Amino acid sequence: MPSISTRGNNAHTSPIRKLSPFADAAKKAGKKVYHLNIGQPDILTPAHAIQRVRETDIHILAYSPSNGYSPYRQKLPNYYQKYGIEVVPDDILVTNGASEGIYFAMLACLDRGQTVLATEPLYANYVGFAEMADVQIKPVTTYLSDAFALPSVEDFARAITPDVKAILLCNPNNPTGAVYSEKMLRELAELALERDIYLMIDEVYREFCYGDTPFFSALNLPGMEQHVVVFDSISKRYSACGARVGAVVTRNRDMLTTINKYAETRLSPPTYGQLLAEALIETEDAYFTAVKEEYQHRRDVLYRRLSQMEGVRCYCPDGAFYVFAELPIDHCEHFCRWLLEDFSLDNQTVMLAPGNGFYASPDKGLREVRFAYVLNTNDLNAAMDCLEAALTAYRNVMGTARNESGNVPETTSIA
Amino acid sequence: MPSISTRGNNAHTSPIRKLSPFADAAKKAGKKVYHLNIGQPDILTPAHAIQRVRETDIHILAYSPSNGYSPYRQKLPNYYQKYGIEVVPDDILVTNGASEGIYFAMLACLDRGQTVLATEPLYANYVGFAEMADVQIKPVTTYLSDAFALPSVEDFARAITPDVKAILLCNPNNPTGAVYSEKMLRELAELALERDIYLMIDEVYREFCYGDTPFFSALNLPGMEQHVVVFDSISKRYSACGARVGAVVTRNRDMLTTINKYAETRLSPPTYGQLLAEALIETEDAYFTAVKEEYQHRRDVLYRRLSQMEGVRCYCPDGAFYVFAELPIDHCEHFCRWLLEDFSLDNQTVMLAPGNGFYASPDKGLREVRFAYVLNTNDLNAAMDCLEAALTAYRNVMGTARNESGNVPETTSIA
Repeated sequence: MPSISTRGNNAHTSPIRKLSPFADAAKKAGKKVYHLNIGQPDILTPAHAIQRVRETDIHILAYSPSNGYSPYRQKLPNYYQKYGIEVVPDDILVTNGASEGIYFAMLACLDRGQTVLATEPLYANYVGFAEMADVQIKPVTTYLSDAFALPSVEDFARAITPDVKAILLCNPNNPTGAVYSEKMLRELAELALERDIYLMIDEVYREFCYGDTPFFSALNLPGMEQHVVVFDSISKRYSACGARVGAVVTRNRDMLTTINKYAETRLSPPTYGQLLAEALIETEDAYFTAVKEEYQHRRDVLYRRLSQMEGVRCYCPDGAFYVFAELPIDHCEHFCRWLLEDFSLDNQTVMLAPGNGFYASPDKGLREVRFAYVLNTNDLNAAMDCLEAALTAYRNVMGTARNESGNVPETTSIA
Repeated sequence: MPSISTRGNNAHTSPIRKLSPFADAAKKAGKKVYHLNIGQPDILTPAHAIQRVRETDIHILAYSPSNGYSPYRQKLPNYYQKYGIEVVPDDILVTNGASEGIYFAMLACLDRGQTVLATEPLYANYVGFAEMADVQIKPVTTYLSDAFALPSVEDFARAITPDVKAILLCNPNNPTGAVYSEKMLRELAELALERDIYLMIDEVYREFCYGDTPFFSALNLPGMEQHVVVFDSISKRYSACGARVGAVVTRNRDMLTTINKYAETRLSPPTYGQLLAEALIETEDAYFTAVKEEYQHRRDVLYRRLSQMEGVRCYCPDGAFYVFAELPIDHCEHFCRWLLEDFSLDNQTVMLAPGNGFYASPDKGLREVRFAYVLNTNDLNAAMDCLEAALTAYRNVMGTARNESGNVPETTSIA
């Protein structure tokens, strides 16, 4: 039997999805599982756009151009204008979600073995993209005690060794919810310019800022035309994750020309999704206002509930729809699996994303988990009831196990 | 200004799409361009499936599972049964077209620097996937004089050095139209088993066999459960290229588990496309009969017209919808670009895919081009009228240039 590749055996597994088999088993056994592990919102996709796709007269579902369906690319600048971002269609290449854009940009900007600086905890799949592109991720750690604020420019400067070709940030941040201010971004831009490295910014949560810091796009950093590339997606903005439509936006034409080679190799982004995306550009501001209010309300509920739980450390996040919290546990993977396999409250349980999977540094985040507040407040409260009961039950189980063996029970790796 | 990566600068460019800017310019200038360069059929997508998508009640366009939308995966075995292929849903992982499946399989089966044997001329994007996965493609050449028949098992055996982990074939073949017999495939399977390497087969043109050789799926090779992986797609089968739905099919569970890690990293295949794909499984046989007849008719027209042109060498292909022919020219890229930039007949011209881009060996295929017979016979005849006139005109232009300079005019590289 021919062997699986070593890189395949060692490949990154998604902390967001890897517990799925245990969730499936729990559901099969009749348990209700509240999914706070994945950023799949329960918010409705704007109905006018779904209707528009429905009414589109399709006879041949053809490829779109590799860089995207032209009517969509032509209209996208109108969306960006709402954020004061001036771009033209030629600055945009449509991708299969933001995921593909990040991967393509790594290929286009970095040679094998070169390094991207990224704050951690980070969106876990960055690690997967980096592996696929054979580039290194060098983490610059952010801390819960500091509400995961952006490290100082000095911290970044110290981390920039000659192999570093780019800084990769997510703003607003997944998984921490931190929002980075214009001032901080300008300082970082100055550093990137001085060291002549790329600034790669994932802005897929642009719409979701609840605090005092207004969203500031890296595309509005002056003098950074050749250095900034922004990754975007319609997944979260319009609750259209299944469309698989994202974009790479940059004024660096060489970069976009190079990315287009990779885009041609995979032929085209999905046509249906792009038809939807085109219609979504006309989404009214009222939709965003309502959605943002709803998320802010959920954040408040989640933050309040978590704050009231014994031994839980958290903070009130400013953006996106995640809270990254510390729980009174020893190993998040063990706890998250235990929640699915061994716990229930009124035949219900909750699925969380283990925090260690969001760190590039080993052995960090073992007591942390990510909560995605993508459920309505009733479900969110029910999920928090589960968690609260679970933490007590888990403490007892672990205490008993500890007393019996004199040791912490062995934590199970589910990699 | 930070530099583009060396790999990005050197990246493979698609011979199928890279002349697109010249085609766009020709169209802008008012010329009609017959696209024989790309496998985008003008055949209608089955209307019942488009209607089904239209009627689907979508409120939230959510992610599908990473390995595919479950109702679709459950039904796919019914499609394969029509070919006597017995597979279960767990043998199937849904991908973004066949493209992604090929790339993921390379990651899962080969480590960096290892080698895939592939017949050439080959589907050009294999080279792109191999570059992205950092694996080598070692070509085993097939020849026009032989109608691009599969090389002998001895030829393959000689090419299998210790770094070779897989043989990659396309059957029916893009770009040559060759169809490989059960006997040949069994011999190759024996070799793969003996050397313990993977047999990776791209079967996206399964439906399109016109000759005496019936299609035989590699999934029906006995004893090859751990060695065979098949790449599939709904793009050509149902003229649904824009759906971006393909599949990896293998009974090797370790391979599929590994591929699933990469699938999780990119989250999910497109949901709309999978809804369409699910409905397409119920496509009636009459659709395929009619489509196959139409393609066979086109093939006959194209073959007849090409055979009648002075200096053109071709053969009658048995499958897929391509003819790979030799033209009386010195450099296919120069000629294909000239067709778009400098030639027209009644304000019409034809776009072809330069043949050299389909070879992994350097300097092969310089006099060859690929024709995709994806247009109706009227358009196909008009395109052939253009080509016939163009070959005469080009001969004169090149003859004059040669006479004036005493040299062949410099061929332009459009890479």
